[in-house]
Amino acid sequence: MEKIESHACFGGSQEVWTHASHTLACDMRFGVYLPPQAATARCPVLYWLSGLTCTEQNFITKAGVQRYAAEHGVIVVAPDTSPRGAEVPDAEGYDLGQGAGFYLNATQAPWSTHYRMHDYVVDELPALVEARFNASTARGISGHSMGGHGALVLYLRNPGRYRSVSAFAPIVAPTQVPWGKKAFAAYLGEDRDAGRDWDACALLASLAPDAQRLPLLVDQGEADEFLATQLRPELLEQACRASGHPLVLRRHAGYDHSYYFIASLIGEHVAHHAAALHA
Amino acid sequence: MEKIESHACFGGSQEVWTHASHTLACDMRFGVYLPPQAATARCPVLYWLSGLTCTEQNFITKAGVQRYAAEHGVIVVAPDTSPRGAEVPDAEGYDLGQGAGFYLNATQAPWSTHYRMHDYVVDELPALVEARFNASTARGISGHSMGGHGALVLYLRNPGRYRSVSAFAPIVAPTQVPWGKKAFAAYLGEDRDAGRDWDACALLASLAPDAQRLPLLVDQGEADEFLATQLRPELLEQACRASGHPLVLRRHAGYDHSYYFIASLIGEHVAHHAAALHA
Repeated sequence: MEKIESHACFGGSQEVWTHASHTLACDMRFGVYLPPQAATARCPVLYWLSGLTCTEQNFITKAGVQRYAAEHGVIVVAPDTSPRGAEVPDAEGYDLGQGAGFYLNATQAPWSTHYRMHDYVVDELPALVEARFNASTARGISGHSMGGHGALVLYLRNPGRYRSVSAFAPIVAPTQVPWGKKAFAAYLGEDRDAGRDWDACALLASLAPDAQRLPLLVDQGEADEFLATQLRPELLEQACRASGHPLVLRRHAGYDHSYYFIASLIGEHVAHHAAALHA
Repeated sequence: MEKIESHACFGGSQEVWTHASHTLACDMRFGVYLPPQAATARCPVLYWLSGLTCTEQNFITKAGVQRYAAEHGVIVVAPDTSPRGAEVPDAEGYDLGQGAGFYLNATQAPWSTHYRMHDYVVDELPALVEARFNASTARGISGHSMGGHGALVLYLRNPGRYRSVSAFAPIVAPTQVPWGKKAFAAYLGEDRDAGRDWDACALLASLAPDAQRLPLLVDQGEADEFLATQLRPELLEQACRASGHPLVLRRHAGYDHSYYFIASLIGEHVAHHAAALHA
């Protein structure tokens, strides 16, 4: 691991690291904010999963998360959104290939060699973070859009792995919307059952009665340009209701899909995670 | 004037507008954050001047200013850093020409036709803002690096025009440092006296005994890569002491020249301005 950026920020340090990922078989970058408390104590870690087209930079430069992470003593880790590099398969559109890993493990050629973002985010990255930084094993997960899908799916697939979960404008039912259908067809093949293992609403529908049910906080802008076509939060409401999963879904008049929306509410999400992570 | 972006943010609206500037003889863009209070009352305006290479986007996407502007009921206007367009003269380096207007009125060819950022920021832009938005004529000014130079110089050259002033890592003595020497030689010619009219430390040295003296807040990172070569805050300290001008200069260990530094302290600057602008 090599540190390639370090900036003092709100009394802590916003850093970017690079490392050779064995899961993804390429070099990867991630952002990590170390709050002032991490100088003297182990801090819990909030993993943030970004949306389509993003790198590790978008969230750390635009969301204003550092102020709240410093207030609450939470480390924030923001990985890239896919494997990267000349040797990694890519596609023409912004919604498939590099920048569009969808936080799953691909089974289809040519994607299956590198596109294993689920295992990277769930296993390899926390192991690195917990070994290198003053991080505890208390983990929260959140994200935006494709990354909101990632947060929901990683939580639902890995009971006990996370202590807190939230999302901004998530893709809640990728098997039912154009972004997800395109990506899943490429990464997972045309078998519809394979897609259900990576679809939050489908995972909720098969949730065991005694499964872990964390309080789920979701914020959604009502002026979001992708609301009706790609996001469809009503499907998450239905799935949570049917499976008895707690959900606080807040709809915000006038807010769109941008980082201005995330910035306006990230403080409340950090507080939501911190309450569980410090409990 | 045409609105080209609008995003709900912290209960208000982050917008970007474009207009044909008669001062600069080109089309210009500026960012404007309208806090929730502007829906029902005239609000004072903080003008933010960005640094070398920036457009109107950098500050509005990276500084996190909107939260504080919403708390304090302050409109924030962020212009571009130079005239723009294919018809506007430019130069090879990042520190001259487009993106590097230095907030002065150029006297030398080929720059003098378009490069009149002083008059644009002091006169044309406030007239537009005060006519179009729910803005009072209470104005504050701040900025970063080249824009910190701009804030200091516009305040000192225009007594009574601003009610509050501050700067982040400003170029305080452009006639004495490489960035300023290069730009001033091009825009103003080799006459050293011409440069003194656009140099904060020189303007302080000739400040009239009865001139307006606003409380001046300046923050400077001690790990700033341009500290010793381009910024030299000790020259501002000396000039303020010699001219009896108030100055609170705060040096911050570990902080660099980036927006992570600005984001960490912009809340205190907005509070500094709001106290004067609402008085």
